[in-house]
Amino acid sequence: MKNINNSKLKIIPLGGLEQIGMNITAFEFEDSIVVVDCGLSFPEDDMLGIDLVIPDVTYLKENIDKVKGFVITHGHEDHIGALPYIIKDINVPIYATKLTIGIIESKFKEHNLLKTTKRKVVKHGQSINLGSFRIEFIKTNHSIADASALAIYSPAGIVVHTGDFKVDYTPVFGDAIDLQRFAEIGKKGVLALMCDSTNALRTGFTMSEKTVGKTFDNIFAEHRNTRIIIATFASNVDRVQQIINSAYKYGRKVVVEGRSMVNIITTASELGYLNIPDSTLIDIEQMKNYPDEQMVLITTGSQGESMAALSRMASDMHRKVTIKPNDTVIFSSNPIPGNEKAVSRVINELSAKGADVIFQDVHVSGHACQEEIKLIYSLVHPQYAIPVHGEYRHLKAQAGIAESLGIPKDKIFILSSGDVLELDEEQAKVSGKVQTGAILVDGLGVGDVGNIVLRDRQHLAEDGIMIVVLTLEKYSNQLLSGPDIVSRGFVYVRESEDLMEESRQVVLDALDYCSTRHITDWGKIKNTIKEDLNSFIWKRTKRNPMILPIIMEV
Amino acid sequence: MKNINNSKLKIIPLGGLEQIGMNITAFEFEDSIVVVDCGLSFPEDDMLGIDLVIPDVTYLKENIDKVKGFVITHGHEDHIGALPYIIKDINVPIYATKLTIGIIESKFKEHNLLKTTKRKVVKHGQSINLGSFRIEFIKTNHSIADASALAIYSPAGIVVHTGDFKVDYTPVFGDAIDLQRFAEIGKKGVLALMCDSTNALRTGFTMSEKTVGKTFDNIFAEHRNTRIIIATFASNVDRVQQIINSAYKYGRKVVVEGRSMVNIITTASELGYLNIPDSTLIDIEQMKNYPDEQMVLITTGSQGESMAALSRMASDMHRKVTIKPNDTVIFSSNPIPGNEKAVSRVINELSAKGADVIFQDVHVSGHACQEEIKLIYSLVHPQYAIPVHGEYRHLKAQAGIAESLGIPKDKIFILSSGDVLELDEEQAKVSGKVQTGAILVDGLGVGDVGNIVLRDRQHLAEDGIMIVVLTLEKYSNQLLSGPDIVSRGFVYVRESEDLMEESRQVVLDALDYCSTRHITDWGKIKNTIKEDLNSFIWKRTKRNPMILPIIMEV
Repeated sequence: MKNINNSKLKIIPLGGLEQIGMNITAFEFEDSIVVVDCGLSFPEDDMLGIDLVIPDVTYLKENIDKVKGFVITHGHEDHIGALPYIIKDINVPIYATKLTIGIIESKFKEHNLLKTTKRKVVKHGQSINLGSFRIEFIKTNHSIADASALAIYSPAGIVVHTGDFKVDYTPVFGDAIDLQRFAEIGKKGVLALMCDSTNALRTGFTMSEKTVGKTFDNIFAEHRNTRIIIATFASNVDRVQQIINSAYKYGRKVVVEGRSMVNIITTASELGYLNIPDSTLIDIEQMKNYPDEQMVLITTGSQGESMAALSRMASDMHRKVTIKPNDTVIFSSNPIPGNEKAVSRVINELSAKGADVIFQDVHVSGHACQEEIKLIYSLVHPQYAIPVHGEYRHLKAQAGIAESLGIPKDKIFILSSGDVLELDEEQAKVSGKVQTGAILVDGLGVGDVGNIVLRDRQHLAEDGIMIVVLTLEKYSNQLLSGPDIVSRGFVYVRESEDLMEESRQVVLDALDYCSTRHITDWGKIKNTIKEDLNSFIWKRTKRNPMILPIIMEV
Repeated sequence: MKNINNSKLKIIPLGGLEQIGMNITAFEFEDSIVVVDCGLSFPEDDMLGIDLVIPDVTYLKENIDKVKGFVITHGHEDHIGALPYIIKDINVPIYATKLTIGIIESKFKEHNLLKTTKRKVVKHGQSINLGSFRIEFIKTNHSIADASALAIYSPAGIVVHTGDFKVDYTPVFGDAIDLQRFAEIGKKGVLALMCDSTNALRTGFTMSEKTVGKTFDNIFAEHRNTRIIIATFASNVDRVQQIINSAYKYGRKVVVEGRSMVNIITTASELGYLNIPDSTLIDIEQMKNYPDEQMVLITTGSQGESMAALSRMASDMHRKVTIKPNDTVIFSSNPIPGNEKAVSRVINELSAKGADVIFQDVHVSGHACQEEIKLIYSLVHPQYAIPVHGEYRHLKAQAGIAESLGIPKDKIFILSSGDVLELDEEQAKVSGKVQTGAILVDGLGVGDVGNIVLRDRQHLAEDGIMIVVLTLEKYSNQLLSGPDIVSRGFVYVRESEDLMEESRQVVLDALDYCSTRHITDWGKIKNTIKEDLNSFIWKRTKRNPMILPIIMEV
């Protein structure tokens, strides 16, 4: 496909590097925009009280007439999670493979969006036409079934986007990654490769998912006399399949516990991605009818999430499952960065209850390591490299790999959110910047918690609040009542009565000061109270609670 | 040494398992108590606003007449950090090796405790007599110089406590661990071994500190043309020595940056633990006089601590050092569990500034792996095993090692904080429990922040606060002013004026309700306001701010 005019392809990440997880990229050519993925991210440590973070899609809203559709690579939260929020404003058709659409639909059902949105199942090998673009879905392997790479055909050239992927020559379900197709497209001539960087710092090759099945078999063989509880990622359907396989082989019944685990397993087996032998799956209520050595529990909580099933079992908060000495508990997962301590806590709690906890080497990654990345580059042989998915250091590691394979440094682009990369066969450059950002979701509120609210929460979290209330007489400003001082999260008041009494005196002195100087402006009176009390409290405690004077008028 | 009467040795951890880092163990025999180590721990994620956590030493206070002294294994915070707080109540002499005492003294200087406390330097191989106990200091290796194991001789038998240790046959400074002495004492007959479990989950042998020196040499050789910045643990004096060695070898000047780094290097070189060639160390102000390729910066911040020097450089907040493209930045450290994300953030910031960041394989642990643990068990050959230092899973892993070496399961004890283990050659059992716990330090306050305050901080952090103030007339309870509603950390008020106005109406309705039902008790009125407003806000926002009604009386 030749560049038939002077127009260039624009690639605009609307999330990603600055907001890891918010994978959403706009591909624009003249009057057509196609959006690849629509992920959410989870709040950073300093986003107190926030539930989710979704991308700011102002750019799409402003160009809504151009937007032809969402094309989704696979069904993980960081690629589909923002759809229920974004689709309300950008209501265009969604294209993805069967399981991915199935997962999206179970989300949309919860958000009551099934009737008002359009979704279309695409098979691997098929293409769809969206404005100036044609998008081909290519089979890959990942830690969720039905993952796709995309070949994005534009008049300016072909872009190959791997999505999240690994090379698994012996997958548990379905075919291996379609390396031949990558090669064929590479042979045609590829403008740019956007390749998964998550494991770009890891040498070698990611092991096949099937190796975990062997590990399960070994563990089941060694623990014939105990109950087995396995925590893993709900969406890793192949992993769940392998647990079911081992359970069946060793004559055990399987109980599934945890809401997201139940949801995904239901969707996956309805759509034929999970093969469960008859009467293997039993309800948690039936568990009491079987001896321990005939049971396997598959559960959520592999990341130490405090409300997940396994964490509740570990801390004796689960209503139906109590951990017993000699239970074998398996973490079939690695902690995602940031979750290490939470996972350790659960492991320690389980160990302390006498369980035999296995948490090393019962997992393989879903992402390509260095040798796989090199393989894809060598098959696709792109003109430009645009590393995607991962932190800056991961993208930079992939940039290093691309360079080592002969791609010149000036043809490798690490894009920030909002960067507009214009490219064709002649040239590629970042030509501008569009508005992007993180929209915070807190309860029902989308975007109503901003920096000021977060800063206040941080302040409150650190040192609490002291509220000073007093009633003044209208006009005369005479003190009618108070000052009353109420504190929360500051000190345990019963043990600090002196401090509170002295604080009241500081406020009275501040009022005196204002009164003798004829300061009647309430803003100024409040400021005086705030400053005086602040410096008194700092001197006495080296703490800095939020001080909030409230004046009532009668 | 024979058990000369019916008395038993008591071993009582006053911190440790439940408070990782708070290493402090009481050894008691009749009228003598010796305390090994006195560490602090850092706040858990849910201890909002807390600076430090120190052990509750009520048991020592209640038995102050028995307490003969503190015996300190080495100068890390988790072994000495609580001393400045505890020594005020338990003012007994402190015994440790020279560098350890040096570090304690620089702490005591800050706390103004030098004159009121007693400290005594002990050499490796020496013993001290403390009541019924004799304590021998045995040379070990660790990530700080001058670390000691202790042989604790009591009438009930000998206990060997390894402290934190590794086996380094080729240490950077001083001698290798005194394995012969461990063997000799083992030959005499050892009652119990308390051995470091930190790396008990890791197979093999920890590499020698010297291997890191080789790595530095290689990196220096490969980066002759760039500035080199190295972050490591301030207290790892041997690591700093090796950086200085490489710098000297490659003709570079060394600048030390970060308060704790400067402190430790000062102490260590004054005491002769650090050998700095003349005119190698320069002041940060002189840096401008040297070209980049002649500079090495040694800095704090290897754990991504937001206020440490390297983090400030990474985020352009450092007043004297600006990161340039081509700077080589080395993390000579591994992230401590819980710090992974913070470290990643700093690496990403540095990479994004163009620095070449090296963060893999420039570090070795200071703790013994499985083969070293087995070595110590085999030399000491204890009757009882009491794994120490580490989380439950680590202690359990060491228990497994001890069992594999032939120690019967019922002679292995994983002790919780406060457990009283009574033992002699005949028998060992946990016979009771003493008071222990975590005392929270926040600013100047020690122990004045408890569970209620922390729960309030958590609540405030999640959803903020809504304060409802109203003035009622005495006796009549007639509303004179308000209700005024002030919120912080809840929603951005300017965008939520409707919600605030409706909230005011909810409060007015609640007051009406009380008034028509002749409810005059303020407690009940407040509760009605709280409940009604709470359910209104939850319905509208799915958030749960703290609601604080304050009634003023005129």
